[in-house]
Parts: sequence; C-alpha cells; structure tokens
Amino acid sequence: MSSNNLLPSPKTVAILGCPFSGGQPKPGVDKGPIHLVQAGLINQVEELGWHVVFDGHHQFEGVPPPSNGIQGNGTSDVVVDTALDASIARLRSPLLVAQVCKSVASAVQAHAEMGRLPVTLGGDHSLAMGTISGTLRAYDQACVIWIDAHADINTIYSTDTGNIHGMPLSFLLKLNPPAPSPDSVLAKFDWVSHLPAERLVYIGLRDVDKGEKEILKKHSIKAFSMHDVDRYGIGKVVEMALDHVNPQRDRPIHLSFDVDALDPSVAPSTGTPVRGGLTFREGHYICEAIHETGLLVALDLMEVNPALADAESVRQTVTVGCSLVRSALGETLL
Amino acid sequence: MSSNNLLPSPKTVAILGCPFSGGQPKPGVDKGPIHLVQAGLINQVEELGWHVVFDGHHQFEGVPPPSNGIQGNGTSDVVVDTALDASIARLRSPLLVAQVCKSVASAVQAHAEMGRLPVTLGGDHSLAMGTISGTLRAYDQACVIWIDAHADINTIYSTDTGNIHGMPLSFLLKLNPPAPSPDSVLAKFDWVSHLPAERLVYIGLRDVDKGEKEILKKHSIKAFSMHDVDRYGIGKVVEMALDHVNPQRDRPIHLSFDVDALDPSVAPSTGTPVRGGLTFREGHYICEAIHETGLLVALDLMEVNPALADAESVRQTVTVGCSLVRSALGETLL
Amino acid sequence: MSSNNLLPSPKTVAILGCPFSGGQPKPGVDKGPIHLVQAGLINQVEELGWHVVFDGHHQFEGVPPPSNGIQGNGTSDVVVDTALDASIARLRSPLLVAQVCKSVASAVQAHAEMGRLPVTLGGDHSLAMGTISGTLRAYDQACVIWIDAHADINTIYSTDTGNIHGMPLSFLLKLNPPAPSPDSVLAKFDWVSHLPAERLVYIGLRDVDKGEKEILKKHSIKAFSMHDVDRYGIGKVVEMALDHVNPQRDRPIHLSFDVDALDPSVAPSTGTPVRGGLTFREGHYICEAIHETGLLVALDLMEVNPALADAESVRQTVTVGCSLVRSALGETLL
Ligand SMILES: [Mn+2]
Ligand SMILES: [Mn+2]
Ligand SMILES: [Mn+2]
Ligand SMILES: [Mn+2]
Ligand SMILES: [Mn+2]
Ligand SMILES: [Mn+2]
Repeated sequence: MSSNNLLPSPKTVAILGCPFSGGQPKPGVDKGPIHLVQAGLINQVEELGWHVVFDGHHQFEGVPPPSNGIQGNGTSDVVVDTALDASIARLRSPLLVAQVCKSVASAVQAHAEMGRLPVTLGGDHSLAMGTISGTLRAYDQACVIWIDAHADINTIYSTDTGNIHGMPLSFLLKLNPPAPSPDSVLAKFDWVSHLPAERLVYIGLRDVDKGEKEILKKHSIKAFSMHDVDRYGIGKVVEMALDHVNPQRDRPIHLSFDVDALDPSVAPSTGTPVRGGLTFREGHYICEAIHETGLLVALDLMEVNPALADAESVRQTVTVGCSLVRSALGETLL
Repeated sequence: MSSNNLLPSPKTVAILGCPFSGGQPKPGVDKGPIHLVQAGLINQVEELGWHVVFDGHHQFEGVPPPSNGIQGNGTSDVVVDTALDASIARLRSPLLVAQVCKSVASAVQAHAEMGRLPVTLGGDHSLAMGTISGTLRAYDQACVIWIDAHADINTIYSTDTGNIHGMPLSFLLKLNPPAPSPDSVLAKFDWVSHLPAERLVYIGLRDVDKGEKEILKKHSIKAFSMHDVDRYGIGKVVEMALDHVNPQRDRPIHLSFDVDALDPSVAPSTGTPVRGGLTFREGHYICEAIHETGLLVALDLMEVNPALADAESVRQTVTVGCSLVRSALGETLL
Repeated sequence: MSSNNLLPSPKTVAILGCPFSGGQPKPGVDKGPIHLVQAGLINQVEELGWHVVFDGHHQFEGVPPPSNGIQGNGTSDVVVDTALDASIARLRSPLLVAQVCKSVASAVQAHAEMGRLPVTLGGDHSLAMGTISGTLRAYDQACVIWIDAHADINTIYSTDTGNIHGMPLSFLLKLNPPAPSPDSVLAKFDWVSHLPAERLVYIGLRDVDKGEKEILKKHSIKAFSMHDVDRYGIGKVVEMALDHVNPQRDRPIHLSFDVDALDPSVAPSTGTPVRGGLTFREGHYICEAIHETGLLVALDLMEVNPALADAESVRQTVTVGCSLVRSALGETLL
C-alpha cells in the first residue's frame, strides 16, 4: 500500500473516467476509460489498499451546447479578434475542448481538496489542461511529470493540425496570447491554471515538432528524450527529472502518462504510436519511482484507444494501462 | 575455455538430466532435459574445451515406492503430526519430491567431490533442493545466485498452491518447522542441507507472493528485482549481487537459473511466464559475468517445458537454454 | 542541421549507391541501395538542411573484364605465388572485389576532397575497403568506428568461407602478407590504404570467429561487444569508443554501419543476422552521438538485403536504414 505522505487516511483514489475524444480526430479514444474499468482496474486499486471512489464515467460527449449557441466543434457566433482569427480558426473544436476540460478541472479539484488522489482515465491528452488545472488549484506548488512520445506544447501559432491534444501544455504554460476580449475563443481558456515552465519535465520524447523544439529551448523546459534514456538509463533519468522539478522533494507531483510514450510493441492501441519508445519495464519503473517519492497527488492515464488495433493488441494495451496505474499507486515487485 | 579456479584439470562437466515434474502440476517440464541434450548441448560444451560426463537422464518418474508403502503423490501411511497436518496436507507430492531431490543431491555431491562441475537440467525448480544440497556437501562455503521471476521460498504455511517448485528455498534456508517425529512427512526433508540466508541472492524477481515478500524482509534476504535491473543496469546488479554473497570473491558459486527469469518473448516455453523479464542479452550477461569470477562450481537450468508452446517457441526456448549454459561455462563474444 | 566542424558550407552529402554483392554469396544485397533511395532517403537528408549530390547508382555488376583476361569471379591467368596459392584460392571473387573497391575508393576520395560527406549505401561490407581507403586519402588522420555483429577482419589464412565481406579490415590493417609479385592476386589489393589498428574501434560484436578473436588480441584492437553494451550501457560504450580512437576529439570519423549490428527483430532483412543485437534505440543512439562530435566525414550503411525476408521485414529494415543515416546526419529527437 501507499506510503503517500500528502494524503489523509483512509488513503483514497477517485477514478475519473473521461470518455472524451474531442482533442484529436480519431474515434475510439473515448472508449479507453470504459475498457480500463472493465478490465478490473477499480478492484486492482482496492487490492493495493486504497479506498476507491468511482461515480461512473463522465458524459462529455453529451455536453449540451451552451446558451450562446456555440456548437461543440464550431466557432460560430463567437466574437473572434481578427488578428488572432486565422490562428484560432485552425483549432479543432476549441470550445468543446475548453468546456470539457473546465468541467474536468472542477472535478479533479474537488476530489483533490477532499484529500483524494484523482486518477483520470482518458480520453485524449487535451484533458490534461483540466486535470492539471484541478491539481494546481488544490496544490499551488505542484509540479508535473509528463510521460509522452510528444511534447503536446504547440501554440495556436505553431500547431500544424489544430488538434488540441497536441497543445494542452501551451495553455497551461500560458504560451498563447492573451484573449483580446471576453467573448473571444481564447477567452474560453482563461480558466486554465498557470504551470510555471520550471515545474514541468518530460520523459520519453521522440516525435517533437520543429516549432515545439523552439518552444522547449526558448522557455528552457527540461525534457528527457529517448536519447537520454539510452544515454543515462531510466533510473538516472527519473532521478534527474525529479531533481529538476522537485529538488527538495517537497512538491506535490502530478503524473500525466500518455501511453504512446511506451513503444508500440508494448502499447499498440493508441492514436499516434512512434517507434523507439519506453519498454514495458521502463514505463513501470517510472511509475514505481514516482510512487516511491510519496508525493504523488494526481495521475492521468491517457490516449488508450481500443478502436485502433486487433483484439489482442487492445487487450495488451489496456492491461499495461491498468498495470501502470497500479505501479503508480504502490504496487511493487518486492 | 574456462578460467575456473576451483576445478582440477582436465576441467570436467557432469551433465545431469533430471526429467522430473513432480514439484508442479503442468506435464511436460520433465521433457526439458531431453530436448536440451537433443539440441546438441553436450557437443557444444565439449567444444568450449570441457570434458563432459553424461550418463543418460535420471529415471525419477519410475522411482519405486519405498518399502514403507509411501506413494509418490500421497501421504498415506506416513505418521503426521496433527499440528502440522493441515499445512503439510496442502503440499503436492511431498514424499516423491523429497525422495527424488535426495537422490539428486547424492549425484551432484558425488560429481562435485570428484572435481566435476555438475550441470543439472530440469525439470522443475523443486530439484534445486537436491542440487544445492549436493553442492553444499562438497563445498560448505558455497553461495547461491538464484535467477528467477519467482522467489520459490514459500513455506508450508505460506504456500497457496502446494507446488513444491515454489518452495525449495524454504527448505534450504530451514524456514519450515522442525519435523515433529522421524516418521512425519517433514522428516523426509531433514536431509536437505542448510544454506544460510546471507549466502543467497536473487536476480530477476517480479512475481513474488505476499507471504514471500514478508519472508524476504524478515530474513533480510538480498533480492534484485526487475526494478533494480532497470534502475542500475544488469552490469551493476550482478556486481552488487556478487558483493553481497561473495564479498571476497572466494566462495564457490552455485548458479540456479530458472528460464522464466527471461522475458516470455525470449523463453516462451515455460510453466509460469511473467511479463517484463530479463532480455536475451541480460540473461547471457549474468551467465558470462558469473563465469568470469572463476568460481562457478554448479549450475542448474530449470523449467524448460517443451509441452507448453508451439514448435518454434519450444525451439527458441531450448536454444536459449543451451546458450545460457554455454555462457556460464565460458563461451564469450570476444 | 549539422553542426559538423570539418566540412565547408554549404554542407553537402554525396550519396553513393553501391549495388554490389560480390563480397558474399547471397543475391539481393546489391538491391539495398536502390531500396534505400526509393524510400526517400535523399529528400530526408535534404530536409535536414544538407545539400545532396546523387549521380545514380554505380554499375559495378557490369564492370568489364580487365585487359589481362581476369574474370570477375576467377583467378585464371593471374600469376599466383605458390606459397600463397592455397590461401588465396579460397577467396571468392578477389579480383572483382578488388577492382570494385578501388573504384569506390576513388569516388569517395573525390567527394571527400571536395568537402562533401560521402554516404555509401551497400551492398556488402567488402566495399568498406574502398570507402575507408577513400576517406584516409582525403583525411590521413581519420579514425574508423565499425558497428557490426561481426569483426570482418579475417585474413586470407583465417577465413573459413572466403567471403571477402568478412575480411575488409584485414586488408585495411595490412594483416595479410605482402604481394609476392606485381602480378599476383594479392597485389590487386595493394592500393588499399593503411588504417593503423589503434584508429579502429568496434561496437556491437557478438559473432566473432576464433581466428578473428586471436587477431583482435594480437593487435590490441579495441572492441565493445554486446556484453559491454549490457555492462556499461550504450551511452558509456560510445564515450569509451570515442576516447579510444579519438582521445582529443580532433580526428575525422568514418562510421561504417553494418545493419546486422542491430538485432534481427529490428533489421531482419540482412545476410547474416545474429540474435542479441543492438536495439532500435541503441543503433540510433550511436549515430546521434557520433553526429554530436561534429567530426563525421564519411558514413557507410551496409548489408541491407531486400531479398531475404518478407515485404514487411524489408520495409522495416529499409526504414531503419534511412533512419540511421538521418541520425548520423543530424536528426535529433529534441
Ligand atoms: Mn503522445
Ligand atoms: Mn500526449
Ligand atoms: Mn520461476
Ligand atoms: Mn523457479
Ligand atoms: Mn555483419
Ligand atoms: Mn560487416
């Protein structure tokens, strides 16, 4: 069971199933949380000694259009500053994503403030705008460890695809321009909490856009790519990552784990697989080592998409997803 | 050829084929040694410069019932202490296992005392009660390096399954209660030699029962799990393992290698495969590094079960088994 | 883009497709360069910021018989010293190989002297006699980093097969006897440049002939086998390799990469695959780390054989080949 230093007893996990796919174009990622829960994740976490709260999956896909007539995937009827218009128009479903993430942020915040450890099951990684905002409201000194093949830090200017699951960190780090007016699309993201760049660290990067590389450099954001994992070994990399975002080992940790950080041979059923990823063991090592800090206060498991592979690959991906969550929550080999 | 410091010339290996499956429930593991020998293992060892003694496979399955009427898989007609009865009754085939292992111990001891290096091909891992006892009688300062996904240290109280291949170390470390009388079932294990806990080290653990974890802690038994292999790398882990059991590099080494220590993608044909195991290279590295010490005096290769997978997986597992033996006996890449 | 310190601007790569298979017996390796180019390698290198020169593939298979009547795969009409005769007669196609490599040497030299970085796509590894000679003529202080499962250093006496792709380094290190007369077969290799043994280092060895092991020892040639990669990790191994051949980090580097250095699960489509090889990531790490030195002046990518596997394995091998070249030419993860 958990040796978590920051949570009151009885140690409690709140599982948030977020069947949301609006931050990227491939259907199916909204089915990730259902599969994870059906695979027995809740019982597995309970067997580790946690009390588990689970109120069913959120119903984001059915979010009703707000009263101002904004549709989930449109920008019609929103006042858009002309200077920003071209950029923002490239975003896909910005209002839907903003609305859903805002609601996730409130849910995560509420659980965290009750002393629970929110485990958010995605769904696409745009959701992390919400989860991390929720964590920061409850723990203003929290740091973020982001495990991903991708940097997910494109701004409204640098994005090629407009898929917001490749952008959540640009909103969290406040890298986009300020909203020109309260009615503009950008203003719909004003609720997002601010994560200082020095409290973010990446592990596992290997498919980073050119614009993102410049952003990482410009803001001196610490990132350990697969090259670093090869150079130093995963043990040293996790230590260096913690030294960067948590030098005194006193900050609460939000761990945001995109399963595409794992090699496609380990987690094939995901939307944007990239070769040369973390091994099964390295992925678990990260989770185990973060658990060992006793500082984990929130966990995301994102981008499991059961629609993108054969049944055996789906089973394998869901199984490894559950297993990563268990490792982060205290399952150990010895 | 071997730079072994402890064996007289001509350096001689004694191959003991032990077609025994009585320590666990899955048929087929008794066919492991036949497959290993048919794959050419004897010639391969000779080509490394060893003289090889091989007297055919032992005929354990045909062990005749002893005169007191004990059947291989029963406890009838054995005087059992009532206080221990419930526990011991849960063991599967304890008398058969005890009898077979006792005979293996004598064979290993005899070879070792002749200055030969016994290589025992299993068969299930319960046999190690015999092989290690044989080694300890010939070399009372010997230490044991146990490569396994499992700890194989359940006691008669902690075992869930009663399969003795999950228990040999509890007998070797004398963790079970003393036999209440000379006629009791437990007394049939009295011949097992005593291995002090500080002369045992594990590498590769990743599926350890709850009761076993408590045993490892209580007796301060050194174990390097896959988490440690990831953290430190296999080179450092082997060094630390040797530092623990063999700090002066003067103790004879018994290496007991369960092929399920390897990842199932490397050695699929075994009874209790567990994900996240040693790579092909890590498995060989261990054997090579133990050879380099010049202190190896006995080797077990256990749990190759040719009945549990398709032909190609069997071939692959048998091939890697032969290759591990060669590495432990001096085959090097350079 | 490249931070190469030794090349003038505009940084230019010369791609030399060498569809040659005469140094070994398996048809198809001559199709490697065609596949690599068809996979888009030239555009990929241009996208890294290099100017690329590509004049089509060399037409080595059509090399006309020289005027003295020597046929490509024969030794008829060549004056052979009787003492050497038996040894040389075992070589396969020595005159063809010598002639082709000599022409490759001139091509590589010409490009290198124009300040270009020659990237030679094999074809079999005998070609490296040519490529490295070309590099040494342009940069007499160049060192060689040889990535391979094999040592490729058999002499005319030690070779079992007579396949010259297993021998190029014996000619480059001048380990064969001097030619007894200007008309002898051996004299056809007199043009080969001399690489001092201390300027050669291997990474990835795991299938080295007995005679080759003796050669490596006798000449104190530095080699990092897969055992070393496991022991130290690839990061430390590359550092030690560079410390050996390039202690001041001032020597131009010729990187000769045989794809069979990679594990067969990564690069299946090659003539002599050997288990236990470099992972996808380790292979790329090497190329990235060599690039980082800023000292790379020539690159070989050898032994891609598209005739030896199913379509998917060929695609995979060709893809990884292109990817290795890109990494050596400056593609980075961050
Ligand atoms: Mn990703
Ligand atoms: Mn992501
Ligand atoms: Mn086992
Ligand atoms: Mn075992
Ligand atoms: Mn090779
Ligand atoms: Mn080669």
